[in-house]
Formats: sequence, C-alpha cells, structure tokens
Amino acid sequence: MPENQSLQEIIDFISYIDLLKNVIRKNGLHDASREENTAEHSWHAALSALLLAPYADQALDIDKVIKMLLIHDLVEIEVGDTFVYDREEVAKQGPSEAEAADIILSKLPEQQGEILQNLWNEFEARETPEAKFAKAVDRFLPLYSNIINRGYSWLPYGVTQAHVLEIASIIKDGSTGLWELVEDMLDEAVQEGYLNP
Amino acid sequence: MPENQSLQEIIDFISYIDLLKNVIRKNGLHDASREENTAEHSWHAALSALLLAPYADQALDIDKVIKMLLIHDLVEIEVGDTFVYDREEVAKQGPSEAEAADIILSKLPEQQGEILQNLWNEFEARETPEAKFAKAVDRFLPLYSNIINRGYSWLPYGVTQAHVLEIASIIKDGSTGLWELVEDMLDEAVQEGYLNP
Repeated sequence: MPENQSLQEIIDFISYIDLLKNVIRKNGLHDASREENTAEHSWHAALSALLLAPYADQALDIDKVIKMLLIHDLVEIEVGDTFVYDREEVAKQGPSEAEAADIILSKLPEQQGEILQNLWNEFEARETPEAKFAKAVDRFLPLYSNIINRGYSWLPYGVTQAHVLEIASIIKDGSTGLWELVEDMLDEAVQEGYLNP
Repeated sequence: MPENQSLQEIIDFISYIDLLKNVIRKNGLHDASREENTAEHSWHAALSALLLAPYADQALDIDKVIKMLLIHDLVEIEVGDTFVYDREEVAKQGPSEAEAADIILSKLPEQQGEILQNLWNEFEARETPEAKFAKAVDRFLPLYSNIINRGYSWLPYGVTQAHVLEIASIIKDGSTGLWELVEDMLDEAVQEGYLNP
C-alpha cells in the first residue's frame, strides 16, 4: 500500500470518529445543564486517569491507560451507549461491541488497526494493571458526576445504592483509595436523598 | 499535606475541568449539526495525534504529545475559545492564557501542577518536536472539519484561502505529509466555493 493511501485512511478515520461527539449518554454534566456525549467523556476519562495515576494500586504504564481510554468507547459509534444500570441492555452488550470494534478498527491501516484492537481487547478483558485502572476511572466518572449534579441519571431511573455499589465495585480492582472515597460519597448521596437506599 | 488532601484536590479538579464541555467553539462538527466544544475537540486532537504519529517529521515521544493535547485548552475554561481568524482576539490572547494556566493548574497538588504547567509551556513555545507536532494536529483539525462540512466556520466569517494558509502554516513545522494534504484540500475548497479565494 503506498504511503499516501495509509495517510488517507487515517484522515478518513479522523472524520469518521467525529461521530462519537453525537453519541449521547444518560449521564449529565456536573452542572446538570445537559447530557454528556461520549467524545467529551473520553477526554475526561483520559485526563482523569493521568491525574489519578498516583492512586493506582499497581505499578503501571499510564500512557497505555490513556490510550485505552481515548479509544475505549469508539464502539459506541456503531452500537450507541449502554446505560450501566439497565440490566437488559448490559446483558446483550458483549458480542455487538466486539463486532463493532472489528468493523471500526479495520478502517485503519492494518498495523495501526491491530495495535488499537489489542489495546481495546486488553481493556475489555480487565486483567492487566492498566486495564483495571482504566476501567476504574471509566466507572468512577459517571458515578462522580451523579454526586456533583445530585443524581441526574440516578433519580429518574430509580437507581439504588446497592446497584451502584455492584456496578462500581470494579473500581476496587484499580484503586483502593478511589474506592474508599466512592463508598463515602454513596453513603452521603443516600443521606442527601439523591440516591435511593 | 496528607495523602487524602491531595486526592481530594485532584477529585475537585476533575469536577472543575468538566466546565471545558461548556466552552463552545466557532468550529462545527463534521456533520455540521452543531458547534464543537473544547472537551470533545481535545479528545479528537489527542487521538488524532496518536493516529498521525507515523507522519511526524521528527522522532518524538507520542505519549507526551497526547498529554499536551489533553491539557492544551484547559485555559479556555477561564478565558473562552479564541477564534483563530479573528485578528483582534488573537492579538490579545497571550498574557491572559498564561495567567489562566497558572490559576487553573495551581488548583492541583504542587508536583502535579508543575508537571502540567511545564507541559503546557512547552506546547505554547512550539520549539520541541512534540510541541510542533501537537500544534500541527491542533491546527489541522478545525481546518479539516471545514473541509468536510464545507466551510461551516469559514463562509459566515468571510475567511480567505490566504488567511487559512497563514494560520495553518505551522502544520508544516510538524508534518510535511499533512501539510501537502492541506494545500490540496484548500485548493479544492476554493474551487468548490466554500472558501473565499
């Protein structure tokens, strides 16, 4: 493949992924002015991981974590966002996201597509220190925005503390410090009335 | 400073930077459905840099480029976005952005704030290979979206090809391959009538 064809594929891909800015999540901004889109969430996750890196439980390559978080939700361009508190949606999530990753990343020059595919697979498998920490940050952010905007995506869906604890428990696998903070936040959320007990 | 105080400062900062999602730029999405915000732009820039890394002219640390792009526009939380084609706005941009960087990054634990401040200073100075390439990608993206959405932020402001070439010329310092593509794109934009000659 001539070099300029690879460059053209990358340029086309950069336009294609602009669509992630149109994927709207249930989760609200901290000021509760609107729902968040997945592109801005991905930025928030990548930068938050950099900031929270000192609180990862295991030694890790933070640059790899950042790259994982930049690409972790690209699949939503094809399958949309799955609301983590909707059990039916979550149950059917597996295969279609893997298919979407394949469809999306095969648009890139082969070698680059493979590198990103491996990164996405590693993130999804949640076995390496990098994947565990990336998942912890990804799971923390929508929970934290609900703390700040007082249940923007919890109250309308009747989400309970037990359900949030179940979903959020993977934070424990990446950062004990963050997890302890989360437990306190959730207790306070129930006391303040923006999370159902 | 006790460890939990540092963690709390970081957590507060993660909420503060959520405001970048509310900074609206002149630039439109590729599908021209709305204007872009700076948080989603920052994600797009960081991921595009990773994808375009093989086309950087100089050997560089791409992880540093990505970190630069994740933080490069945080200053806009305090000063808003500067439209690159508004000469008056651009002229007064310097000092207030530097002040904003200082205000914003001093919210972090000292050591982390310093690391990000150095990264932001390096980006702004545009002297290292990483800064040159990060600036090239940052400058390319809004130009490219105008190519795809046919002049969304060019036509309403009467922007000319000469002015775009002037603004975009720093792309040359980071990636010759990208620059050649840009020159062709701009010629076509004029021919197609969505950029003034």
